[in-house]
Amino acid sequence: MTGRVMIIGLGPGPAKWVTPEASALLAEATDIIGYGPYVDRVPPSPAKRHASDNRVEVDRARHALDLASGGARVAVVSGGDPGVFAMAAAVFEAVEAGDPAWRDLDITVVPGVTAVLAAAARLGAPLGHDFCVISLSDNLKPWSIIEKRLIAAVEGDFVLAFYNPASKARPDQIGRAFDVLRRHAGERIVVLAKAVGRPDEEIIVTSLSAVKPEEVDMRTLVLIGSSQTRSIERGKAEPWIYSPRRWDA
Amino acid sequence: MTGRVMIIGLGPGPAKWVTPEASALLAEATDIIGYGPYVDRVPPSPAKRHASDNRVEVDRARHALDLASGGARVAVVSGGDPGVFAMAAAVFEAVEAGDPAWRDLDITVVPGVTAVLAAAARLGAPLGHDFCVISLSDNLKPWSIIEKRLIAAVEGDFVLAFYNPASKARPDQIGRAFDVLRRHAGERIVVLAKAVGRPDEEIIVTSLSAVKPEEVDMRTLVLIGSSQTRSIERGKAEPWIYSPRRWDA
Repeated sequence: MTGRVMIIGLGPGPAKWVTPEASALLAEATDIIGYGPYVDRVPPSPAKRHASDNRVEVDRARHALDLASGGARVAVVSGGDPGVFAMAAAVFEAVEAGDPAWRDLDITVVPGVTAVLAAAARLGAPLGHDFCVISLSDNLKPWSIIEKRLIAAVEGDFVLAFYNPASKARPDQIGRAFDVLRRHAGERIVVLAKAVGRPDEEIIVTSLSAVKPEEVDMRTLVLIGSSQTRSIERGKAEPWIYSPRRWDA
Repeated sequence: MTGRVMIIGLGPGPAKWVTPEASALLAEATDIIGYGPYVDRVPPSPAKRHASDNRVEVDRARHALDLASGGARVAVVSGGDPGVFAMAAAVFEAVEAGDPAWRDLDITVVPGVTAVLAAAARLGAPLGHDFCVISLSDNLKPWSIIEKRLIAAVEGDFVLAFYNPASKARPDQIGRAFDVLRRHAGERIVVLAKAVGRPDEEIIVTSLSAVKPEEVDMRTLVLIGSSQTRSIERGKAEPWIYSPRRWDA
């Protein structure tokens, strides 16, 4: 079998964050599969493009596996890193439940810069200490486990990063999450990092007591500092946010 | 002031994971500062190289800030992503405690592929669900907070990734961490991902009950699955490890 599936992370947006490995493998692909806006980011090439809607991850994964079984070199593209709330898990779910012959396919996951790293870099060094990364979508998990994880993360005094903080279907998830944190944590630095690296980038530095859920949209990566996260004031310039490497009780 | 500090992530090792932004800024640097093995990874250029020993992060940061104050374009290099247990936090610590004029410097953090993303990609999709990233070094934080975080992470059923799991000074940190997890969690998939992407790469897929602390060294990224993390068997080939996007109690 000469087909292969390459699950490729395109980074948060700009070409400067697409790794050389991702670029090289995209250029070799015969087929490119993904959510429309990600497929649109792939540079022109002779590959056939199969853009699909959001929320059909497993269908898309099966399509890729089918094409590869027929000998195609299929690139499945995601924004950020494909292993962080993106296409990699969907492909392996499809493999486990699907045609046993798919287990013999050559499947390569190509890591990328995930949104939390780009947002952190833009702000300073907020991840300088231990951190948790949580998807707030309750599409595939009950709210009870999300709430349990938020409380556990506060208990451990982790820095927190939220992916999928809001969607049209569930606009109030993030408000519920802030409420849980306010009940369990003291005051915290909160940053809303929108579309980092893209032309519509916007950064809002605020606090757990002041943040407004309506400021959060689908493009937003939400960062919640630990008890130790600090802001370095710089007069008129935006402050730098960082978490010291040292932790003192 | 024309000087600048660029805190650059070189990724886990191979050139295929160095972003175009990192490469472009390294080529512009007049000075390159970092731990010796990372400085050695920077392609040949006319820049002056200042390689230093490990464990002198804040001295190195001050050196970079001093040079930039004098007009240099200084690249501070880290492996992986500079914001994840690397040089970015040290630079902002030095800024906060140092010369107020340093706050006017142009400081840019350049994100990179951090080790946990490369290890996850190599294995399948173990980070397909919520996860925590913890440094096991107790050089700068007490063991009590590490233990508290391990317990909280188990309580939240997160996938766990450990950086700095072992060092010559503290060879038994990882053994203590496994003991804490065994007391609080059920059986879990454990993966020891050593030197991912480098010629000495080695992957050990094991379990919380079977893993041996002596198999962990400084090059190892340790991944502990959640209760939901699964292995897809493939006959003689290495299994794929993934965490389903769906979570069921």
